[in-house]
Amino acid sequence: MIVIGELINGTRDRIAKAIRERDDEYISDLAMQQAEAGADFIDCNPGTVGDDEVKDMVWLVETVQEVTYLPISFDSPNVEAVKAALDAYHGEETPMINSITAEDERMDAMLDLVADSGVNIIALVMSDDGMPSNADDRVNTGLELINTLTGAGVERDHIFVDPVIAPLGTDHEVGREILEAIGEIHTEEPEVHITCGLSNISFGLPQRRLLNRIFLSQCVAVGLDSAILDPLDRELMATCCAAEALAGTDEMCMTYIRASRDGILGGE
Amino acid sequence: MIVIGELINGTRDRIAKAIRERDDEYISDLAMQQAEAGADFIDCNPGTVGDDEVKDMVWLVETVQEVTYLPISFDSPNVEAVKAALDAYHGEETPMINSITAEDERMDAMLDLVADSGVNIIALVMSDDGMPSNADDRVNTGLELINTLTGAGVERDHIFVDPVIAPLGTDHEVGREILEAIGEIHTEEPEVHITCGLSNISFGLPQRRLLNRIFLSQCVAVGLDSAILDPLDRELMATCCAAEALAGTDEMCMTYIRASRDGILGGE
Repeated sequence: MIVIGELINGTRDRIAKAIRERDDEYISDLAMQQAEAGADFIDCNPGTVGDDEVKDMVWLVETVQEVTYLPISFDSPNVEAVKAALDAYHGEETPMINSITAEDERMDAMLDLVADSGVNIIALVMSDDGMPSNADDRVNTGLELINTLTGAGVERDHIFVDPVIAPLGTDHEVGREILEAIGEIHTEEPEVHITCGLSNISFGLPQRRLLNRIFLSQCVAVGLDSAILDPLDRELMATCCAAEALAGTDEMCMTYIRASRDGILGGE
Repeated sequence: MIVIGELINGTRDRIAKAIRERDDEYISDLAMQQAEAGADFIDCNPGTVGDDEVKDMVWLVETVQEVTYLPISFDSPNVEAVKAALDAYHGEETPMINSITAEDERMDAMLDLVADSGVNIIALVMSDDGMPSNADDRVNTGLELINTLTGAGVERDHIFVDPVIAPLGTDHEVGREILEAIGEIHTEEPEVHITCGLSNISFGLPQRRLLNRIFLSQCVAVGLDSAILDPLDRELMATCCAAEALAGTDEMCMTYIRASRDGILGGE
C-alpha cells in the first residue's frame, strides 16, 4: 500500500495557523510523525490562493525536506505553485503532483509540466461535466486520463487514478459505484496505481473511522493500492496491512507477521 | 447480512461438556445471547458421531427452540441426524441444513431430504477431488451444486453457496482466490446466497479477529450476503453493518444509522 500522508493540509485550522506563522517546528514534527508511522509520501497542501499559495507551498516543501527523505506530494490545482514546488524540491525520490483532472483548463495548464518533469501524478476523475455520478463516469474519465497522460509520455507506473470519493450519506449507492469503478480500472489498466482520498466516504455519518477502515479494506480487495489518509490512525494502518495480506499481495504474509511482531496491528 | 450464529458447536470443549451433561441452561443461554446479538439462524452442531449424534442433535434442537423463534441450522454431514432434527423442529421459520457437498456419496444421501423438505441448504464447494485449490475450482463446483439443487426443485433463494475458506497462513493467495470466486458466483447467480465459515481464514496467524473482520468486509464487497460467525463479537457485527452500508444494500444507510444510535457500532 502506497500511503500518502494527508496531515499537512492548510484547509485545517491548525495547519493554516502554522503556515501563517511559519511555525517550522510544528510542520516538521508532523512530517516526521507521518514518516515514522509508515507514510510513503508527505502531502503538502498550502490551502491558500494566488501568490500566497506559491510562497506557502515553497516554504512547506523546504520545511518538510529538511527532516525527511520521503518524497513530497504537491497538493494544489495551481500550476505556478506546483512549478515552484518542483524547483524547491531536491529529494532523490520521485515526487508527486496532486492533481490533474480531465477538465480542459486544468489539463492544459498541468500537462506539459507533468510530462516534462517525470513525476508521479494523481489523476482525479473529474471532467468538464463535473463530479462523476456513477461507476461508468469514473471508468470513462479514468481511462481517458490514462490515455492523455501516457500519450504525453507519462509512464503508467507514475499514474495514480483517484476515483473521487463522494459521501455515502448523500447517496447510499456511491460505495458500490466506486468499488465497481476501481475493479474495472484495475482490470483494464493493471499497471496504473489507484488511490483515493478516503475519508470523504464517511462525511456526515456516525462512526466515521469505522466506515473509513471498512471501505479501505473493500477498495483494496478490488484493486486499490494507494490511499491518501492519516497514517497516525493506527487502526487504519493495521487495516491496510491486513487488507493487503488478504488481497494476496503480501508474500507468505511476511509483512503482516512482521507488523504484528512490531506491535503495529494492535493488541488483539 | 444473514448471520448464522456459530457458537453451539460440539467440537468446542465447553459445548461438548454441556451436550454430554444435558446442560440445557448453558445451551439455552448461548442461543438467547446469539439471538439478541442479531443472529438470523442458530447453528447446532453436536460434534459427536453415529447414534449419539442423532440423539444429541434432537436434544440441541429441542433445547434451542424452547427459548427462541429463530430458525435453526442443522450442522452435520449425517443424514440421519439431519432427518431427526427436521422431525424435532417445529418453528415457523424455514430452517437450514449445513451442509451438502458435490461429493457423490454425501450428495446422494442428502439430496432427497433437501428437495422434499423445502429448507435452506448450505452448499459447500467440495467435490470427490477434495478441497478446492483455486477460484476456478470454487466457481465450477459452486455452479454444479446450484444446478443439481435447482434441478431437484430447490429454490435459488434457499441455496447458500459456501466457497470453503482455507487458512491464509498456508497459502497467501487463498484470500484473493476466494474473493474472485465469490465475485464470479454472485455475478453468474445473483439470486443465490453466498455464505462462509469466516474464521478459518486467519488460522495460524496473529491478530485473528482483525483478519476476520477485514476479510468479511472484502467478501461483502464482492457479493457475500451471509456468514457463519460469532455474533457476540461486537466489532465483527459492527463490521457487517458498515460493510453492507458501503456495498449499497442499506437503503439511505438507515440500518447503519440506527445501529449507531443503538450503540451497536462501538464508541468511535
